[in-house]
Amino acid sequence: MKELLYEGKAKRIYKTDEENVVLVEYKDSATAFNGEKKAEITGKGRLNNEITSLLFLKLKEKGIESHFIKRISETEQLVKEVTIIPLEVVVRNVAAGSFSKRLGIEEGRPLSTPIVEFYLKDDALGDPLVTVDHILELKAAAVEEITILREKALEVNAVLSSFFAELGINLIDFKLEFGKDEQGQIQLADEISPDTCRLWDQKTNEKLDKDVFRRDLGSLTQAYENILTRLGGHQHV
Amino acid sequence: MKELLYEGKAKRIYKTDEENVVLVEYKDSATAFNGEKKAEITGKGRLNNEITSLLFLKLKEKGIESHFIKRISETEQLVKEVTIIPLEVVVRNVAAGSFSKRLGIEEGRPLSTPIVEFYLKDDALGDPLVTVDHILELKAAAVEEITILREKALEVNAVLSSFFAELGINLIDFKLEFGKDEQGQIQLADEISPDTCRLWDQKTNEKLDKDVFRRDLGSLTQAYENILTRLGGHQHV
Repeated sequence: MKELLYEGKAKRIYKTDEENVVLVEYKDSATAFNGEKKAEITGKGRLNNEITSLLFLKLKEKGIESHFIKRISETEQLVKEVTIIPLEVVVRNVAAGSFSKRLGIEEGRPLSTPIVEFYLKDDALGDPLVTVDHILELKAAAVEEITILREKALEVNAVLSSFFAELGINLIDFKLEFGKDEQGQIQLADEISPDTCRLWDQKTNEKLDKDVFRRDLGSLTQAYENILTRLGGHQHV
Repeated sequence: MKELLYEGKAKRIYKTDEENVVLVEYKDSATAFNGEKKAEITGKGRLNNEITSLLFLKLKEKGIESHFIKRISETEQLVKEVTIIPLEVVVRNVAAGSFSKRLGIEEGRPLSTPIVEFYLKDDALGDPLVTVDHILELKAAAVEEITILREKALEVNAVLSSFFAELGINLIDFKLEFGKDEQGQIQLADEISPDTCRLWDQKTNEKLDKDVFRRDLGSLTQAYENILTRLGGHQHV
């Protein structure tokens, strides 16, 4: 019987026998709008587990380390244990979603340069956008850490944007989370999947991400399978 | 007949015979929550016109220039014509209002250091909080201008905080606007009044600002008269 350490909206984290290693189980739950919209979608956990694994491996290949160790089953992966920094780090290449609405920039308009945003991880507050001053006041991260988060996020963006471009996909925006390991080192953590990225087909602008669920645009698993297939992942039969 | 150049929620701007000089008329209108709550409050225009005049004079005395030239009637003042930078620059010393709600910091908690925030001046969007990256993307201001705005706002805060403290008032937070004059120089502009500041009595924490109107806490003119009297302004009989 695995000991559950934490259960989030999309994942469960379990203790393992190995020190500083935890097991992440990807659930089939889909949630949006701070949990207001919910569904169980068979296959989602498997898809995000494999997509995340492939993307963390791709990043490692390009010199960007993460907490990822290895995928051990359809829905499970082993990762280094980290203490999550309570910030969602969002990188945007093209205006979309809440960003478009907040700032009145039409969805689909490319930004003049990639933008990094920080949101406080706090469900009760609805994950508000925060400035550097806010982060420091809340002691969510120190100023040097904010600099590291921003730099790492832009590095990830550079690698993933060109990787997805090779697969005929535009990386519109994405959310990263970071943690600190036992040495206090900042590690890329959490997941990178169509749940946390906006991915649009380069030719058709078809949405191949969680907006399919948020906006009722069709089959989520079909969109995620499309991404997995282009990444060279396992076909599901 | 004065030529109206612009009418806002609380002020009208008129052309004058003098080049680069405009006349500001303070209205008796009170609005809150992006115009959702409205009232006409006799005396408000007079109070804010005089309070703003006294505060701009105080700042000038301390070496901080503004667009203010002189008060010419109970509700009117002459100011240098500037092109307003579309940002509200907010300085906070103590958590209150939307800041408290957004970040879950209880109202009345002093901040560890004054915080400067920028909000996009856009009624249709509800004046959203913006980060430096957003400001640059929107071309609302250049990066050097943002630095100047931040520095000037903190200078104003230092002067006004200690000035209000002498009068037994805590300057909780306030909003500034800046403009560019014909030489492209950034000038402090708009108004500084209980409409744009949170001012709490040091002993009682009584609110002496627009929250009296926002939150239905009593007589707005009585609160504003209290501020004007402490500033040494004209008693109204």
